[in-house]
Amino acid sequence: MPSGTPSRRRGRPARRDAPDGPGARERILEAARAEFAERGYDRTSIRGVARKAGVDPALVHHYFGSKERVFETSIEKPFEPVMRVPDLLAQGRDGMGERLARHFLGVWENPATRAPVLALMRSALTNETAAALLRGFVTRRLLERVAGDLDVPEPELRIQLAVAQLLGVAVLRYVIKVEPLAGVDAEEVVAQVAPVLQRHLTGA
Amino acid sequence: MPSGTPSRRRGRPARRDAPDGPGARERILEAARAEFAERGYDRTSIRGVARKAGVDPALVHHYFGSKERVFETSIEKPFEPVMRVPDLLAQGRDGMGERLARHFLGVWENPATRAPVLALMRSALTNETAAALLRGFVTRRLLERVAGDLDVPEPELRIQLAVAQLLGVAVLRYVIKVEPLAGVDAEEVVAQVAPVLQRHLTGA
Repeated sequence: MPSGTPSRRRGRPARRDAPDGPGARERILEAARAEFAERGYDRTSIRGVARKAGVDPALVHHYFGSKERVFETSIEKPFEPVMRVPDLLAQGRDGMGERLARHFLGVWENPATRAPVLALMRSALTNETAAALLRGFVTRRLLERVAGDLDVPEPELRIQLAVAQLLGVAVLRYVIKVEPLAGVDAEEVVAQVAPVLQRHLTGA
Repeated sequence: MPSGTPSRRRGRPARRDAPDGPGARERILEAARAEFAERGYDRTSIRGVARKAGVDPALVHHYFGSKERVFETSIEKPFEPVMRVPDLLAQGRDGMGERLARHFLGVWENPATRAPVLALMRSALTNETAAALLRGFVTRRLLERVAGDLDVPEPELRIQLAVAQLLGVAVLRYVIKVEPLAGVDAEEVVAQVAPVLQRHLTGA
């Protein structure tokens, strides 16, 4: 780039270009995800989110109304991978556990997709309101949709036990980083976990 | 109690009786667990712990030297139930998964034993130093002890996968409180989880 040309990050509107323009809503959500991740739910404020997004706090209120609603909307993006679970289940019983294990490990292996999920988990583990919002989201967006796809008794309980296995692996492997689990190849984890998920989802 | 008699809590030295007496070390650890639970690792300070314990900060330094060491020592008590895992494994392969599941559910079902474990988990999930201290503790105190008791390949990895299942159940059932998992009887959870733990620990 010749010197003197103003630099501009690719693929992202310059922060001050149009503070209340069409990019503002997504910029606010991005700032909110960063703030919730960094400071936790309790210490994140609408004012802080607005400052980080380079907009007036009134604009955050205009779009979302409350901190709860900012949080709830900001978790939609980290939840995108979870939204693909119904498709994975709909591909049939055979290999269901393996597809689910490989999908989740893929999300967690990639730092870019891991960060927002981890931030969300931290908020939910340290604040009751965040936990309640996540609970509502999981119930409405995931459990109610997939329960009909599993032809077993208590499908929702079974999905939760499978998710519990994956969640625990994520905590020990990527957060606490305990060896050997943190260091083994992702495919070995898939191989160990897939039969357990299959058992939870379709029975022994 | 006749009026005029000074009240005194049973089984616990009165706070100001002997601030640096033999009860002081345990009182500091109790204050530390409360502070880590309430404020998280980052925002807990030796000064704050000392204030809560009713002692001089110098006494905390005298006993523990650093915040890291206060944390590491304070997690010994919430870890007591985990310390019983080697005994549960040593009772033989048959029913190993069920014993482990029932033991852990028992710890989490009781609010008194749940609180310190949950506090520890919150610190480890939100702070790298706390995660590293917990990792070292788990490795030295648990994994190195039990690995020899399991006559399977990769015993440490298998224990971690079993613990992952239990940890995930704890998060969904007791922290996020997602239904139906949060509401079913503990014995139903034991019944669902025991075969999975057995599989992890002793093979298919």
